[in-house]
Amino acid sequence: MADLEALAGRVRAAIPLTRHLVFRYTGFDGDALTLAAPLAPNHNDKGTFFAGSQVALLTLAGWSCTTLIAEAVIAGTDDPGRAVDVVAVEGSQQYRLPLKDDLTVTACPAPGQRERFNERLIRRGKATLTVQARATNPAGDTVCEFQGLYLARLVD
Amino acid sequence: MADLEALAGRVRAAIPLTRHLVFRYTGFDGDALTLAAPLAPNHNDKGTFFAGSQVALLTLAGWSCTTLIAEAVIAGTDDPGRAVDVVAVEGSQQYRLPLKDDLTVTACPAPGQRERFNERLIRRGKATLTVQARATNPAGDTVCEFQGLYLARLVD
Repeated sequence: MADLEALAGRVRAAIPLTRHLVFRYTGFDGDALTLAAPLAPNHNDKGTFFAGSQVALLTLAGWSCTTLIAEAVIAGTDDPGRAVDVVAVEGSQQYRLPLKDDLTVTACPAPGQRERFNERLIRRGKATLTVQARATNPAGDTVCEFQGLYLARLVD
Repeated sequence: MADLEALAGRVRAAIPLTRHLVFRYTGFDGDALTLAAPLAPNHNDKGTFFAGSQVALLTLAGWSCTTLIAEAVIAGTDDPGRAVDVVAVEGSQQYRLPLKDDLTVTACPAPGQRERFNERLIRRGKATLTVQARATNPAGDTVCEFQGLYLARLVD
């Protein structure tokens, strides 16, 4: 969890809005990243989880997952000190259920993406990754599905 | 602008995250809604406008546009006091350019949507509206394009 705590600190320091989303990372197994956020600071006019908060958290989860995977790729090379910069390229989301509770997000690369991403990032210094993410309620039901495309670049 | 001020008050009171986005509505001509938000509370680790803030503001602009249009439809009926509830159904966004400046968003119904939306909302008490939105920089260049689908329902 040390990497996650460090990433959370970087994100909260560098991206002010994320402090108001009151998110916390809850796990990363090298492939899937999870985060959680409470309803209280993220409710809407209906007392349910604001769509804008959901999509901001899903976008952040995809970015975080891509960043950790890219950093792990670089850490395994002969020049492991290089920094990686990740940006969102596109995204889409489908809201399935209203949520009157706290939110959990799970984000991981789409099937078959990892090998190509790793190889291109090392060979070309940049690569895109398609990430799939789900927002779920405490019962595990999907409340929002998200697909995002992210671009990772080595920083000179 | 009275309707816009009232809507801004409702949104800020009911949706806490919108206060931290520091947005303000800047116009509504009966079709297109505009809003603006400063870079300072919405920057990311690169000093550019956070993708999560952009998509939250685009989602909010589409919701706001749909809400004002639905309320205008109901105001023109024999029972103009009925309330309307609007929820986001889906959305997609394409980031075109980084933005190191304040953001402007323009949202309006997709071409050919209005007549069907108005008719169904009155006849069936609910209707979906496809909204197109653009986020632009001060020079007018598009930094992010967004398409959203919203469901408006009359509240009993």
